[in-house]
Amino acid sequence: MKVIFDTDPGIDDAMALLYLSKLPKVELLGITTVVGNADINGTTRNALFLKERFGISAPVIRGAGETLDGVAKPAADAVHGANGLGDVLLPMIDETTLRPGTASDFIIETLRAHPGEVTIVAVGRMTNLALALRKDPGVAKLANGVVIMGGAFGYKGRLGNVTPAAEANIHGDPVAADEVFGAAWPVVAVGLDVTHEIVLSNDYLAELGRDGGENGQLIADMSAYYARFYGEFLGIDGVVGHDLLAVTYLVHPEWFTTRLGPVRVLTDGIAVGQTIQAVSDRHPAWAGRPAQLVCTDIDAEAVLEHYRTIVTG
Amino acid sequence: MKVIFDTDPGIDDAMALLYLSKLPKVELLGITTVVGNADINGTTRNALFLKERFGISAPVIRGAGETLDGVAKPAADAVHGANGLGDVLLPMIDETTLRPGTASDFIIETLRAHPGEVTIVAVGRMTNLALALRKDPGVAKLANGVVIMGGAFGYKGRLGNVTPAAEANIHGDPVAADEVFGAAWPVVAVGLDVTHEIVLSNDYLAELGRDGGENGQLIADMSAYYARFYGEFLGIDGVVGHDLLAVTYLVHPEWFTTRLGPVRVLTDGIAVGQTIQAVSDRHPAWAGRPAQLVCTDIDAEAVLEHYRTIVTG
Repeated sequence: MKVIFDTDPGIDDAMALLYLSKLPKVELLGITTVVGNADINGTTRNALFLKERFGISAPVIRGAGETLDGVAKPAADAVHGANGLGDVLLPMIDETTLRPGTASDFIIETLRAHPGEVTIVAVGRMTNLALALRKDPGVAKLANGVVIMGGAFGYKGRLGNVTPAAEANIHGDPVAADEVFGAAWPVVAVGLDVTHEIVLSNDYLAELGRDGGENGQLIADMSAYYARFYGEFLGIDGVVGHDLLAVTYLVHPEWFTTRLGPVRVLTDGIAVGQTIQAVSDRHPAWAGRPAQLVCTDIDAEAVLEHYRTIVTG
Repeated sequence: MKVIFDTDPGIDDAMALLYLSKLPKVELLGITTVVGNADINGTTRNALFLKERFGISAPVIRGAGETLDGVAKPAADAVHGANGLGDVLLPMIDETTLRPGTASDFIIETLRAHPGEVTIVAVGRMTNLALALRKDPGVAKLANGVVIMGGAFGYKGRLGNVTPAAEANIHGDPVAADEVFGAAWPVVAVGLDVTHEIVLSNDYLAELGRDGGENGQLIADMSAYYARFYGEFLGIDGVVGHDLLAVTYLVHPEWFTTRLGPVRVLTDGIAVGQTIQAVSDRHPAWAGRPAQLVCTDIDAEAVLEHYRTIVTG
């Protein structure tokens, strides 16, 4: 299974990437970066750090530093820390290992090189994917699929985190997200409806640190910062593993309950960034758009057990 | 308990009114009408018919025939029938029994006559309530409370019925609804999140018809039309008793689970009419607005049993 991982590391991005890199079925073709949990210099540096640290051979390709709507939405340092990785100490990074070119061009070239074979797992803002579609709309039909961490659809009583109506990745670039949901590739949205079921408790994280070698320990160390945010602001003991759940979908889609229907993203107004799925395309604003899968429920225990097994294995 | 019933009958409005009129604790002060399930002539005629048929002494006062946003949204005949009451045969109505004046003036006068004592139960568009607030903003503080059937908040996987994002009463006059949620009276929103739990099955309706006298039979007859809609479009065996649940809240609030927070209604865009509750007022669009109660869950069995007991009792 050939995969491009589009990411803005980010603590849960790091959790997801370690997991992805250890899945035997997955051939990781590239790591593309995007502004989000830190600025584009930060997320690209973090991706290079994680690639080296996790022993990943796939290249890192720098992506978009600005979103399509031109609205700057800096990351809240309170969530992922000023450096995006929970303020763990980072070594000097050799940026010469960065692969030349842009993320959107890499996505186009890779989809064209392996028609029907590549799945994009996108766990940040959808900017690189939308730029690829704008440059070369025909690539949508060449993707095996796109799995995103993003959105909040009200299937579990939750519409947003960064605003009362919007989830952070979608809110970060709602124009891009609306284009990605409207394109002719099959999208699976793993949103807050299901990711909030995946709570890595502080005990669970301590075990990962103990049994997961130095990379398990890194995840635990970064999470200490992230857990402070979840404890103080949401009263959660531990951290929510948003991004790792998009990776789980690749290998265990049977653990997810899904609903099929066209999706729109609100691109302005007080609910900008909200994701809304229709069950039919009778309403003109949803008409003619492809039916996409939205995850409505998840077997959280199976996911947490699988994650532990893979990361400590 | 003094109550004004603001309504656009409507089959489930009729169900709710019969129930309300039989509650021993409730003193019904007036029935105000609004455009919705039929035009204002139709809903006012239907209210007069139901008043006489159910032996209600409270007056009917004609309300708004146009909504505040000026957008005409005619009722879908497929739901409530061309006459709004499932196309049961209506007798000639003596319209001289209509009380002179407008619904919004009646609301103002009644709240001012009984400060702190009156609850408004509003099961149609919020136009009359918003007009009362615009004419005399001080009345909000004089109401004991406002219970509305309206909205869909994503607490049970449902955002809308008339569009993918909006419930019909709110969609019918989103400007009015946003003003009602923002006023200084306590609002309880009984939305699709809970009303869709109240399914009066075809068997249940047949029993009402058998045991509920001629008014029970009328409910059953009207519902035959309504049930066709639910069966064909939603695959539901029976009908959803949206409006009656707002009445239940008056007498058994303990059967409801609620969540407190400010509510906004989207007044334009593809999700116009969507209702969004925040849990804090950190976001500027929700800041400074009163915290209102939104129903998130309901003991449906208790409601159905209570409704049967009252209506057939």
